[in-house]
Amino acid sequence: MAQTVAILGAGVIGLGWAAHFAAHGWGVRLFDPDAARRDAAPAAVAEKAALLASLSEGGVVSTEITVHGDLADAVAGVDFVQENTPERLDLKKEVFQALDALLPPEVIVSSSTSGLPITPLQEGLAHPERFVTGHPFNPVHLMPLVEVVAGEKTSAETVARVTELYERTGKVTIRVNREASGHLANRLQAALWREAVAVVEDGLASVEDVDKALVHGLGLRWSVCGPHMTFHLGGGDGGLRHFIEHLGPGIQKRWQEFRSPVLTPDLVETLVSGVEQEADGASTEALAAERDAALIALLRLRYASKAD
Amino acid sequence: MAQTVAILGAGVIGLGWAAHFAAHGWGVRLFDPDAARRDAAPAAVAEKAALLASLSEGGVVSTEITVHGDLADAVAGVDFVQENTPERLDLKKEVFQALDALLPPEVIVSSSTSGLPITPLQEGLAHPERFVTGHPFNPVHLMPLVEVVAGEKTSAETVARVTELYERTGKVTIRVNREASGHLANRLQAALWREAVAVVEDGLASVEDVDKALVHGLGLRWSVCGPHMTFHLGGGDGGLRHFIEHLGPGIQKRWQEFRSPVLTPDLVETLVSGVEQEADGASTEALAAERDAALIALLRLRYASKAD
Repeated sequence: MAQTVAILGAGVIGLGWAAHFAAHGWGVRLFDPDAARRDAAPAAVAEKAALLASLSEGGVVSTEITVHGDLADAVAGVDFVQENTPERLDLKKEVFQALDALLPPEVIVSSSTSGLPITPLQEGLAHPERFVTGHPFNPVHLMPLVEVVAGEKTSAETVARVTELYERTGKVTIRVNREASGHLANRLQAALWREAVAVVEDGLASVEDVDKALVHGLGLRWSVCGPHMTFHLGGGDGGLRHFIEHLGPGIQKRWQEFRSPVLTPDLVETLVSGVEQEADGASTEALAAERDAALIALLRLRYASKAD
Repeated sequence: MAQTVAILGAGVIGLGWAAHFAAHGWGVRLFDPDAARRDAAPAAVAEKAALLASLSEGGVVSTEITVHGDLADAVAGVDFVQENTPERLDLKKEVFQALDALLPPEVIVSSSTSGLPITPLQEGLAHPERFVTGHPFNPVHLMPLVEVVAGEKTSAETVARVTELYERTGKVTIRVNREASGHLANRLQAALWREAVAVVEDGLASVEDVDKALVHGLGLRWSVCGPHMTFHLGGGDGGLRHFIEHLGPGIQKRWQEFRSPVLTPDLVETLVSGVEQEADGASTEALAAERDAALIALLRLRYASKAD
């Protein structure tokens, strides 16, 4: 039986989720209070969804995409809600309370929040146990990863059900065990960018060469083998234990030498002019389209190897 | 005209370089003082090189792969030397001196060293200007990235020529402007791993979920778009400047909260047992073969899109 999702917010995150579910045959009910966004949404969703559906054999796109300016109308009869309203505690609190009153208790509400814990939003709700965080990555329709984080009152059943739902629609979930600023992946991303900024400030390498070091080196390798597994393999027969015994002391010494750069106006100019040189006149829109095309080719490869 | 390279050292790095050059039609003269390593080398090189050559249309593998137990014999008449001897200053110093005496001044010697600066090795040489660092990544035959680092006496001409040589044989080079511990990419890698270890120690996520966050999220994205460019695109029309204005303060705050974990025996056990759980009984050899197969599929895709 076809299922239906309500997507709250027709910004870049909401549109990505809408395309994701549409490409997996779900009915999509898209809510946004802004009429211009509502008008633009169906074409944007259909385009992304068609592309996503083309990645695998037998992909179909749901034609049941509707837009709604009224929240009650949007969530009527849905099986699942993905919330992507602005990152403001007061606003999300209102939305959570309205949803709690509107929805039967078995309907899960998952928040795309990248920055807020949901525990304070669960206060005073009749059914706080069905609220959870499901944090996606940009571009949402293409990036498989979703971080699942429970608030204090989220039930284990909700975590299990939302995980199953995401995985069934082709997402890859990880469990973040605590509500922490930046969840997990954005912490790792900030840690890498910290050093990526420091080496540019120190004149060790250009912005463009730092980016190349990832695209043709570290990122390429991490896209097939994570950092812990990479070092496990680096240890040969002795695995990670052997690796740490031999190289751990040197790495630990380097860890202590790392510093936290300060984003002064001068440093920001250095970074901005470096990335503009790398962009070589291309607009962010054109570069994002290039990135998406490359991601699509990679995803097609992953789908094909899964089908083998 | 076919060119010939001498590869010094038939360990995992040397064999990777030998396969790289063989797959690009170069004659390869492989030196190792260890007879058992010499005996095993040709088959290992041929296998890796055939695979590499199969990635692109018209790939050919040089059949001129010879092994040598004598250094003078190995470097006779070669156009280029890639040095991969053990990471010991005294040993490399001897090798550099011998090479300086054996080779005409126009032959470049590039060192694969990951840990040593070459400036101290240039002391007392007749032609120190042709010695340079060309640091590859594992698996060497598959990973495009090479870091080019000059010693104090390396000439600009050597840097330009070795860069051209690597690029012409399909490698992607970046210029590291100073001899720094870990060059560039291994610093970035250590910075990410620092936080990857800290989040496991803090119980935020499992070793396996950290690795999944890279393979299905950050690494996947960084393999098509580096960290600076990612945030440039994250800023929309306003680019990196807009991104930093809005999110810089929050990221900077997070930077200051990062800590340097200590690799205590307990923490090492947590990491090792986590990665063993992730490996699920598979040997490092089998996992490395899996990683290489995935890398090969990605490289085939890159070659194909270049040919378009």
